[in-house]
Amino acid sequence: MKTRAAVAWKAKEPLTIETVDLAGPRAGEVLVEVKATGICHTDQYTLSGADPEGLFPAILGHEGAGVVLELGAGVTSLKAGDHVIPLYTPECRQCKFCLSRKTNLCQQIRATQGRGLMPDGTSRFSLDGKPILHYMGTSTFANHIVVPEIALAKIRSDAPFDKVCYIGCGVTTGVGAVLFSAKVEPGANVVVFGLGGIGLNVIQGARMVGADKIIGIDLNPAREAMARQFGMTHFINPKEHANVVDSIVQLTDGGADYSFECIGNVNTMRQALECCHKGWGRSLIIGVAAAGQEIATRPFQLVTGRKWEGSAFGGARGRSDVPKIVDWYMEGKLSIDPLITHTLKLEDINKGFELMERGESIRSVVVF
Amino acid sequence: MKTRAAVAWKAKEPLTIETVDLAGPRAGEVLVEVKATGICHTDQYTLSGADPEGLFPAILGHEGAGVVLELGAGVTSLKAGDHVIPLYTPECRQCKFCLSRKTNLCQQIRATQGRGLMPDGTSRFSLDGKPILHYMGTSTFANHIVVPEIALAKIRSDAPFDKVCYIGCGVTTGVGAVLFSAKVEPGANVVVFGLGGIGLNVIQGARMVGADKIIGIDLNPAREAMARQFGMTHFINPKEHANVVDSIVQLTDGGADYSFECIGNVNTMRQALECCHKGWGRSLIIGVAAAGQEIATRPFQLVTGRKWEGSAFGGARGRSDVPKIVDWYMEGKLSIDPLITHTLKLEDINKGFELMERGESIRSVVVF
Repeated sequence: MKTRAAVAWKAKEPLTIETVDLAGPRAGEVLVEVKATGICHTDQYTLSGADPEGLFPAILGHEGAGVVLELGAGVTSLKAGDHVIPLYTPECRQCKFCLSRKTNLCQQIRATQGRGLMPDGTSRFSLDGKPILHYMGTSTFANHIVVPEIALAKIRSDAPFDKVCYIGCGVTTGVGAVLFSAKVEPGANVVVFGLGGIGLNVIQGARMVGADKIIGIDLNPAREAMARQFGMTHFINPKEHANVVDSIVQLTDGGADYSFECIGNVNTMRQALECCHKGWGRSLIIGVAAAGQEIATRPFQLVTGRKWEGSAFGGARGRSDVPKIVDWYMEGKLSIDPLITHTLKLEDINKGFELMERGESIRSVVVF
Repeated sequence: MKTRAAVAWKAKEPLTIETVDLAGPRAGEVLVEVKATGICHTDQYTLSGADPEGLFPAILGHEGAGVVLELGAGVTSLKAGDHVIPLYTPECRQCKFCLSRKTNLCQQIRATQGRGLMPDGTSRFSLDGKPILHYMGTSTFANHIVVPEIALAKIRSDAPFDKVCYIGCGVTTGVGAVLFSAKVEPGANVVVFGLGGIGLNVIQGARMVGADKIIGIDLNPAREAMARQFGMTHFINPKEHANVVDSIVQLTDGGADYSFECIGNVNTMRQALECCHKGWGRSLIIGVAAAGQEIATRPFQLVTGRKWEGSAFGGARGRSDVPKIVDWYMEGKLSIDPLITHTLKLEDINKGFELMERGESIRSVVVF
């Protein structure tokens, strides 16, 4: 079939809207009509050329929601008409990782996904007979996609695509880091470095589980109002504090029970660890640092009980947990609408990238 | 009263045996006759002058066992004749740390202990009217000591002092890191960097809880035989492997479930983290690095699920857990006797330091 897609032909160049060929779903695969997709920093990172694993030409996009149109052979967990969120972290429930009960990082199709291919080692996209690569196993900048069954979360049919697509990455990454990775308990003091989309979702995750102090850190004072709306109780602007770590330790009577780094800066990663409470404070890295950068601290920080960890896709098992997060949004436990600051047509997708680069959007969503 | 003690008058000088004055126990304190004491690397570290918190003159020693002789006012949990192990990490059961249920690092008397003083801010030791400082709240290089009630673990009376004194530090630090800090589960793969006294105790802790592969890493091939006796299943000498991390990942089909750094070297701390299994591997730092040294890694190691942690005194709550470890030794679940390679008189204590510096002992014990 034919479908419209924004194609990334090479790094650092705008996407172009093309009508591409899409081959039908093979065994274990599903054809999905994408109804909406967010534009995420990770798409920008790859398009910028900074991602050492970035491949071109490709159809980017990994934060979508849509409807199942057709099933390949052997697909049993979905049917035509089901509403789904594609998962860049699949959940096969069969591999060593899924069965460990200790991680969400299913590795079943990792190797081919990393090469921009379907599990059988080929691409479903092409133009003029030349293959175009998939991206993160999802490629939600195409109106129609073929995705492995294990990479689709079935969600309720009354959830609006143009909002819950954000659960495909940003919401889950932030909220999940609190609920699934850190398992923050009621009454805990939480510190969040960086009040962009991920940080705001960490904040509302902390509010949802009954955290006590929820302290946000950002250089931009304009971020304070929205963060308070999402549950932040205290704001620290590093420009106004001689020592951010000391300020946090004072404010929390000893340090954070949990801290989350949502910036991707190795210096704030160190601060996030060192502001944690002696004996038990846990710091989780969510932000992606530039290639080659390293984190450092004195080992004494760990020997005296702080723990340094990370979170990817919020520790969420996609097929099991993403539908729950959709439910929580529909029940009003989580807020998404104020975070989606711009809604665009596919033709205007490059404008979405520009808004993100200029810091003018929290999240732009393309609606097909 | 008078008692005999090895006094450290200043850094880098041998201890001298003195008859010192010891004031009786004040409220909440207990007079203990020390029957035996180990000589630990931490004593050597302080005596070397490298410890930035080292104070002199002081009576070192923190790995002892003895008998209660006299109670100060208000002491209720002990009586004369009780056998005890002094605790450099006390357990008050009242402070924020004890009540957190998340750490063993009781802070009740931390400030005065760090200054070489009893909780009331004074020393019980003196010579010719001049005070001599306590050390780590224990000073087990004296035949008699005064210790706060909260810093004494009551143990069974049939346990031999010259063996269970080692539970006052080394055994608990190693075994406890496995049982109390990491909570290693049966079937886990465990990697131990450094096969000295701590490493051997980590190994027997891993054996006790039913670990699968127990892999020891040491540059010294002479360490292999004893480590196998304690439960090591595989030995890797870094001199014989191009890349230790890769060798461990291959041997464990993906990486260690738990690794323990028992050397105090920031480079092996990094290896210990990076040899852990993606998704869930946890690396615990036990070794003490030189002052000012830092650990480093790429944050990607943590974002993909490895966790960097530490352990102090094996995560053991002294009064609650040390008596259990004594029981396990008496029941044959843990081995201590082969680790105590030398038994000395107090007069020969400097010889014990020399044996340790030359790597000829695992543990030397002074018997009073």
